[in-house]
Amino acid sequence: MEELPELLDAPLKEAPEIEAVVAGFSAHAVACGLRADGREDLALIAAAKPVPAAGVFTRSLLKAAPVLVSQEHIASGKVRAVLANSGGANAATGQPGMDACRLTCKAASQALGCPPQEIIPCSTGVIGQVLDADKVEAAMTSLAAGLSPNGLPLAALAIRTTDAFTKMARCDAEINGRPVRVVGMAKGAGMIRPDMATMLAFVFTDAAATPQALKHMVKVASDLSFNRITVDGETSTNDTLLLMASGKAGGPALESGDQQIGELSRAVTKVCQDLATMIAADGEGAGHLVRVRITGAPDEDSARHLCYAIAHSPLCKTAFAGRDPNWGRLLSAPAAEAARRGLTFVPEKTRLWIGESLVAEKALWTGLEAEEAAAQTMKKNRYEIRLDLGLGQASYWVLTTDLDHEYIKINAEYRS
Amino acid sequence: MEELPELLDAPLKEAPEIEAVVAGFSAHAVACGLRADGREDLALIAAAKPVPAAGVFTRSLLKAAPVLVSQEHIASGKVRAVLANSGGANAATGQPGMDACRLTCKAASQALGCPPQEIIPCSTGVIGQVLDADKVEAAMTSLAAGLSPNGLPLAALAIRTTDAFTKMARCDAEINGRPVRVVGMAKGAGMIRPDMATMLAFVFTDAAATPQALKHMVKVASDLSFNRITVDGETSTNDTLLLMASGKAGGPALESGDQQIGELSRAVTKVCQDLATMIAADGEGAGHLVRVRITGAPDEDSARHLCYAIAHSPLCKTAFAGRDPNWGRLLSAPAAEAARRGLTFVPEKTRLWIGESLVAEKALWTGLEAEEAAAQTMKKNRYEIRLDLGLGQASYWVLTTDLDHEYIKINAEYRS
Repeated sequence: MEELPELLDAPLKEAPEIEAVVAGFSAHAVACGLRADGREDLALIAAAKPVPAAGVFTRSLLKAAPVLVSQEHIASGKVRAVLANSGGANAATGQPGMDACRLTCKAASQALGCPPQEIIPCSTGVIGQVLDADKVEAAMTSLAAGLSPNGLPLAALAIRTTDAFTKMARCDAEINGRPVRVVGMAKGAGMIRPDMATMLAFVFTDAAATPQALKHMVKVASDLSFNRITVDGETSTNDTLLLMASGKAGGPALESGDQQIGELSRAVTKVCQDLATMIAADGEGAGHLVRVRITGAPDEDSARHLCYAIAHSPLCKTAFAGRDPNWGRLLSAPAAEAARRGLTFVPEKTRLWIGESLVAEKALWTGLEAEEAAAQTMKKNRYEIRLDLGLGQASYWVLTTDLDHEYIKINAEYRS
Repeated sequence: MEELPELLDAPLKEAPEIEAVVAGFSAHAVACGLRADGREDLALIAAAKPVPAAGVFTRSLLKAAPVLVSQEHIASGKVRAVLANSGGANAATGQPGMDACRLTCKAASQALGCPPQEIIPCSTGVIGQVLDADKVEAAMTSLAAGLSPNGLPLAALAIRTTDAFTKMARCDAEINGRPVRVVGMAKGAGMIRPDMATMLAFVFTDAAATPQALKHMVKVASDLSFNRITVDGETSTNDTLLLMASGKAGGPALESGDQQIGELSRAVTKVCQDLATMIAADGEGAGHLVRVRITGAPDEDSARHLCYAIAHSPLCKTAFAGRDPNWGRLLSAPAAEAARRGLTFVPEKTRLWIGESLVAEKALWTGLEAEEAAAQTMKKNRYEIRLDLGLGQASYWVLTTDLDHEYIKINAEYRS
């Protein structure tokens, strides 16, 4: 049975405190004037030398300039630092946007004494405005001068846009008796504002690993975390997940084939899951975090499509907001999606749970008692909905949120 | 160039008056007690004898009992009457639902003096409750006794659920010098409430045509009308479009291959488009009806997928509600969908219009003047958004609505 992240009955809009230090990395952030409110908006997180790194980036065909430059720079497998700003996504900005992005990489590289190709640039904010490279350049000396092992939380603050809280997570592990640590930070409120450039996540470890091993880990981790959260099905122009490994914990660099890679991979995945859960929970207006799980599917692809059919359905999501155990909607959404995609869905074989309550069996109502218990479950701020298809052994899950008035308010009135 | 339905600057929640009489059809409706509010809830629309008919039904794999029975009954190509009720969808009701549905067909067939296989049953309302066949049977004598050529509007009223207005449309045509008429009725408020059984549409003509010809027409018409409206991407358990031809206008029955079929097909399509537009306009909470059009696509499939990417995007739809010419969202949604589906999308080749205003060219802002003109357009209750991909000649359009507070209110609080 697949290991599922816990659904803690914790408040949605806060994160536990962590000790956010990883050997081999230092960070700092300043207010360089990109944000109108004068808050920190420019972060630098650097290793003492180029270290193995891997990333995954938005698949959108409208990629922001920093994504294009980052993909180019990370190709070598080794980088020195991340330079990240809020206050502007530098997306849909054409050649001027690319030029501005490269200028900021150059400024950071001069401050650190490395080639510009070792800088990973990330931007988040409104689409369509060219990054003001002058402001970034002007702040670079004080930014680099302030680098400190204790600077990660300030960097995590600087990349926040609409985030209600700073998102950091940590997981410790042991590799061949050696303690290693993974610390991550993220910004994003549920992938719901492409203009605000959605999701950035930076994960750092003191473990030693090759770029190929990191590439493998970052793929596994994103598939089990950021790729499973959805607030409204939107993908942004700037989504980025970066993993860097300083190797300061010692030991030989883990390779893709090593058995011990499993321990590190699990820790990276755990950190990414914690961060992804925080992002989903921080969906604007979200009052409920719902894990939608399909089991008994003939294959994982089917399970995934039907998960998203429920997780994206405005009717299901408004029912979550209304704490309404509306089993008809929960069956109707995947039934229609299965038809559209040519997937197997046999109503007479299905069972549907809300929390522990079996609310429909063979697509028929199971009675008032189960429905009332389900209504109680839906008052919790985190719970699971499970649909068993009765067809096979495959399963999938995604995290989604309810669709409440607040979402409309924020997104309809966003630029006015 | 494809002919596009007009976007009249008319109020969204009303329909023009029509003379709703078609030779060869009579109708009536009564209140049989299925609805709690005592309004008419049972309609019968009958021909004097079995006539050629064709239908299209929901593709959902959770089909209501009346859909399953209707598909069985229409297979012969000839039917006598439609028996339709509001106050319950008879969906997800298993064998008891099937039995109840067949009982009502039998009652109607006895009243009309025909085999039960000539009755097309349709139901709309909440999912999960078995149709009360006793109430339908008890009302059948008075229902059949009241059949009248002037009864179509009352039947159209009886099938309404959450509809804000009665939806009827008419189009006249001429075939070989003979005037023919097409009259249709529909219920549905934008496919947004599967529990309320979504969309029913019944179209009647006095033209003469074979079942095969009607089958062709109903397919063409639904592809250009009901299949192009979306409020939230939901498909219901009960969706049904039925076309019946009395032949009372005279002349030989049109066959699939006849040239003259074009005139009748256009009239049927026009009626279906008018009805579909009314359904989209009646989306709960909808304040704006927006036609999303993709042009310059390499193929129609690509154009269709990217249309829906915008039309279903909560971020685009909340921008419509906010009258916000947020071109970043309008480009980001199809860019992400293209990546997910492996379709071609080249930002540098795109042009994006809101109404007549070119708001983005090559994925870059075109300036304040165009943006302000677009903001004016978005105050209208009906307008078009067009994205030209610059890749080919194919195009597609869909009608969608904005996503406003009212939608959440209605759907979150629906059963409470």
